[in-house]
Amino acid sequence: MTHAPDPDLDLVLERVVPLNRALIWRAWTTPALALKWFTPAPWKTVACELEPRPGGILHVVMRSPEGEDFPMTGTWLDVVPHERLVWTNALAPGFRPADPGPHGPTITAAITLEAHGAGTLYRAVAMHRNAADREAHAAMGFQEGWGKALDQLVEAVKDL
Amino acid sequence: MTHAPDPDLDLVLERVVPLNRALIWRAWTTPALALKWFTPAPWKTVACELEPRPGGILHVVMRSPEGEDFPMTGTWLDVVPHERLVWTNALAPGFRPADPGPHGPTITAAITLEAHGAGTLYRAVAMHRNAADREAHAAMGFQEGWGKALDQLVEAVKDL
Repeated sequence: MTHAPDPDLDLVLERVVPLNRALIWRAWTTPALALKWFTPAPWKTVACELEPRPGGILHVVMRSPEGEDFPMTGTWLDVVPHERLVWTNALAPGFRPADPGPHGPTITAAITLEAHGAGTLYRAVAMHRNAADREAHAAMGFQEGWGKALDQLVEAVKDL
Repeated sequence: MTHAPDPDLDLVLERVVPLNRALIWRAWTTPALALKWFTPAPWKTVACELEPRPGGILHVVMRSPEGEDFPMTGTWLDVVPHERLVWTNALAPGFRPADPGPHGPTITAAITLEAHGAGTLYRAVAMHRNAADREAHAAMGFQEGWGKALDQLVEAVKDL
């Protein structure tokens, strides 16, 4: 299903990128590629597991410049090849409610890909529980962080 | 996807009921029928909205014998007609993380229906975040409550 962003509850990154949809799809669904782009530098992604099907695992470990690891685990909700990826860390793999962790915002992320000339209109929507969570995520640097990760995604796959 | 219950985290109600799978499916997906059975007496279900597709709404209002209303809203995750229904109140409709409410446990419920002679093997699994949530739900009377609701379901549709 598609999602019309709610300005009070969602954060949106939208950009035309010079990649076809298939390459972006590979970047999002291939662990060896996601390791290269998922976490904005100088942070790194040091582990990644992806089963892009409803109920499958999404697991990444992000490492800070100081060497501290921040794991995130969630599950996929809606997966339409080359078109749409929806995942959440409010549920664990198999759809079990997630035990709230100490780190990071609880979100559902919807990534949609739309052909745009030779490139793709890339839209990422982060949905939050409430306005306070949205504000906190904006203050953490959503736009800059997700934008930089998208730059890294383009670099990671543009020559494939 | 099917789910193998985790004895530390899940509660399970399993029973053979004298209804075919299609009737049980109607009971679970038709608001006018769910109003008759969803909440164990002497509580009542006084409002119900059901869109059994991933991301669609599941909303019920349960009324206590004292007249207090307890709304619950969630969304469907996996819907296979006559076979499987999975929903959660950890997410709101459209998959947004749910704002935690004051009432009731956070669960993902998986209902599976398997033909069993002229009847159906009905299995309901309630998945919890952690062992403490499971214990609290067991102490609230999961077995008795969900069992009584299933009795009411059979009564509500057996003559249809």
